[in-house]
Amino acid sequence: MKLLSFQLEGTTHWGILKDDGIYYSDHLMTYFPNLLSVIQNFHHLNLEQDLNKFVTLDEVNILPPYQPNKNIMCIGKNYREHALEMTSNDPTSIPKAPVVFTKSPTCVIGQDQTILAHTNVTNQLDYEGELAVVIGKKGINISKEEALDFVFGYTILNDITARDLQKKHQQFFKGKSLDTFAPFGPVIISADEIPDVQNLHIQTKVNDEVRQDGNTNDMIFSVADLIEVLSEGMTLEPGDVIATGTPSGVGKGFSPPRFLNPGDQVSITIEGIGTLQNIVKE
Amino acid sequence: MKLLSFQLEGTTHWGILKDDGIYYSDHLMTYFPNLLSVIQNFHHLNLEQDLNKFVTLDEVNILPPYQPNKNIMCIGKNYREHALEMTSNDPTSIPKAPVVFTKSPTCVIGQDQTILAHTNVTNQLDYEGELAVVIGKKGINISKEEALDFVFGYTILNDITARDLQKKHQQFFKGKSLDTFAPFGPVIISADEIPDVQNLHIQTKVNDEVRQDGNTNDMIFSVADLIEVLSEGMTLEPGDVIATGTPSGVGKGFSPPRFLNPGDQVSITIEGIGTLQNIVKE
Repeated sequence: MKLLSFQLEGTTHWGILKDDGIYYSDHLMTYFPNLLSVIQNFHHLNLEQDLNKFVTLDEVNILPPYQPNKNIMCIGKNYREHALEMTSNDPTSIPKAPVVFTKSPTCVIGQDQTILAHTNVTNQLDYEGELAVVIGKKGINISKEEALDFVFGYTILNDITARDLQKKHQQFFKGKSLDTFAPFGPVIISADEIPDVQNLHIQTKVNDEVRQDGNTNDMIFSVADLIEVLSEGMTLEPGDVIATGTPSGVGKGFSPPRFLNPGDQVSITIEGIGTLQNIVKE
Repeated sequence: MKLLSFQLEGTTHWGILKDDGIYYSDHLMTYFPNLLSVIQNFHHLNLEQDLNKFVTLDEVNILPPYQPNKNIMCIGKNYREHALEMTSNDPTSIPKAPVVFTKSPTCVIGQDQTILAHTNVTNQLDYEGELAVVIGKKGINISKEEALDFVFGYTILNDITARDLQKKHQQFFKGKSLDTFAPFGPVIISADEIPDVQNLHIQTKVNDEVRQDGNTNDMIFSVADLIEVLSEGMTLEPGDVIATGTPSGVGKGFSPPRFLNPGDQVSITIEGIGTLQNIVKE
């Protein structure tokens, strides 16, 4: 099941994307006004039965799936080659424990929405294509063996970064949290449709040039590992988002670096999920 | 005006604390169910007029003022002496730009609620008494000259930290975000009652022994500086919380370190605001 949020004739809806288009319901919207509330109440719902309206995809504007009610948790240096490219091939840079920072929910945007270049604040705008995990069940101290039972589904996140601010402020939050720095979506695919989350092709293009071309089997810490470590002493809740790190090929990894400029289009494709695309503007 | 949230006969309320007790309203609660919604709509409200019920302070349980709807933004090493104590007196450790990390809203607790020791995950539990700023008005690219107009009020935050996890995960989020790691409150005092936020005595005691004894005039980046820098390219919203850093005297700063143990009581007093106190339990 692919869930998405969209705007139709000025009104926000959520629904299920199928081959022919989007199925949705006005009635369910009154009880569950957004996808976050759907995820929080998923076990009470029978979506296949209750979505009695239909619209084709080209009639709507896709929105971000939902606005998280806490920061997005992000994992730094979680692909071996990326850890090396960020540190001039220093093998000690490969982390022994997950590096966890956050992005403000105010930076979330959806498919085709504009990434602002913020040229008054940064001149080192970079992309990071990432698999994002959406938590579906509340839990604490979750073992990695049971971790995937706590996953609602998967989506794509572009962890846009101002490299200069990331460095200047030491901790990553500020350089990762400018407005529009979290393209998110276009759909959340339910976990049952992803048979092996650790074997998904992930590719990022800038203007049709492939920049990142990896596979989730290169993660240092798997999705299950990350849920185990993050939930140690810390409650995870339905709707929490974990961006699982990015493969090698970011702009900063090139010599000289190849940062984003206004006019660039970034598109991230993950096998089985879809393509998230956005254009950078001044 | 001192605002607080409390529980009375099993029901959650918010109100205003005066010398004789708490004034509150059942009617306003139906429109503004929590202090976050009060802060978001403050300019529409006339609280002095509409709070027609009364209860004494000893009849209620104080709750955290509210549950933030994004992570708490925290500033690392923002008092000169504290930056030095954390780095064996390395003068280059004094930051040239604010070090910004976040704490999950799931770790918020209120006055007299229990700080969990999480002894299965950490044996380096530490306290950090901090002045916290509550944003009252939406804004981006705010200059420091106008910054204080965006402040709703001030409160106290104990930035409880697992020092071992803080180090292990490199970025601070995980070591700062275990459940119960953000004692918050007991009240939010409106900004008009704090004539000079950069001249407030701040003191932290552990079991009646003074450990931190500082003044907000020692901050490297003032509240106005922090709002200017944080809002560069990033929208601040009503209800956002900024914990402004801690003075010297944290447990890790002693030789040997003096971490918290189950049974310890931590109390933080900030001039003009009040005292936030909590006990550590297994």
